[in-house]
Amino acid sequence: MHQQEQKITAFPPSQKTTIKRIPQRGSYQSDTIYDILDEGLVCHVGFVFDGQPFVIPTAYGRVDDILYIHGSPASRMLKSLQQGINVCITVTLLDGLVLARSAFHHSMNYRSVVIFGTATLVQNTVEKLAALKAFTEHVIAGRWQEVRSPNQNELAGTIVLSLPIVEASAKVRTGGPLDAEADYQLPVWAGEIPLKLSATTPIPDSRLDTEIALPAYVSHYKRSAFMSC
Amino acid sequence: MHQQEQKITAFPPSQKTTIKRIPQRGSYQSDTIYDILDEGLVCHVGFVFDGQPFVIPTAYGRVDDILYIHGSPASRMLKSLQQGINVCITVTLLDGLVLARSAFHHSMNYRSVVIFGTATLVQNTVEKLAALKAFTEHVIAGRWQEVRSPNQNELAGTIVLSLPIVEASAKVRTGGPLDAEADYQLPVWAGEIPLKLSATTPIPDSRLDTEIALPAYVSHYKRSAFMSC
Repeated sequence: MHQQEQKITAFPPSQKTTIKRIPQRGSYQSDTIYDILDEGLVCHVGFVFDGQPFVIPTAYGRVDDILYIHGSPASRMLKSLQQGINVCITVTLLDGLVLARSAFHHSMNYRSVVIFGTATLVQNTVEKLAALKAFTEHVIAGRWQEVRSPNQNELAGTIVLSLPIVEASAKVRTGGPLDAEADYQLPVWAGEIPLKLSATTPIPDSRLDTEIALPAYVSHYKRSAFMSC
Repeated sequence: MHQQEQKITAFPPSQKTTIKRIPQRGSYQSDTIYDILDEGLVCHVGFVFDGQPFVIPTAYGRVDDILYIHGSPASRMLKSLQQGINVCITVTLLDGLVLARSAFHHSMNYRSVVIFGTATLVQNTVEKLAALKAFTEHVIAGRWQEVRSPNQNELAGTIVLSLPIVEASAKVRTGGPLDAEADYQLPVWAGEIPLKLSATTPIPDSRLDTEIALPAYVSHYKRSAFMSC
């Protein structure tokens, strides 16, 4: 699935993707960018409609160097995007709160990816099905083969848009606070509160046949190697 | 701090904020909108620069019916926004994965808020300090009174923008999967995997005086009433 990762190791910074604020936190490495995209569950899609920016949260999937989003043909966002307008898609993972000795130096640890480009309507059925599989497997690996596949009506009732991951950058902050030198003597606790997205006990559907066992990919669901339950 | 909440109970839906897709998931109630904003830690700010949409993650704070964002005077985003251009700010809380019996009906439980408007540079020092306090207290209540307050240089080195929360809506999905009737007989586990943002063990700063005790607001940090450790 990720064969092309071997070929692309970094995306050339563009005027838009160049990290200007604290550039040492920026990365254009494809493995860094793909890792963030693969851990995230929701992206924020930015587009312009009648001069007004919209930012809409939605699910996504990745196949190699293509990001897919999907939804109903009635969606204003998808109707706008398939016209080939400019789009910005951002994925943000929040890793911790950084508590400094001064209010000014408080911060957050995070990993984010910003992708610019234009989205294209996926019309090829083979690519569309591969994208739909990527959505499901992105959220929960192992699920696609167990569930009923999309039928013709469902395929027709789903719009899939593709966005090439070409003009993209990541920004990452890690570690503790960076205080002003004079503040290190202040009697204030300083450090990091790590944050993690954790799965809690699965809730069976009210109509679930009680004979059906909980799959391991549900009971042991973890978002990343770092995710705890 | 939230006295005005008593006055405003709902925001009138506008053309932009009206929830068109699955309208029964939409809400214009200020208490719903404020609760989501107060639980979230990161917003995604959408703005247009040279015809290109940008979506940038950043921290925020709320005082009554005003949302504040802040950053360096060198920030491209803040320089653009203080020109009074249109902005869209979105906050999304991910609450769970919804596993249906068909790929098509998989979904996510979430609570999101979308706010439209134009941002204004905060020039009044009293309001600016109140906004900076709101940023800190929004992230971790009880922190502001313990840390060193911003000095004149830090105040000058921070831009604060205000956005009135007027044109705003929330969208909320809860509960289990909604499968096609024929699929309920499929031998597939279905239900919800709840997700929570959890704090793990605090990491003291490497230069922390070991005499300084861990404050309760750090050791017991929870993002919401529902947040688990």
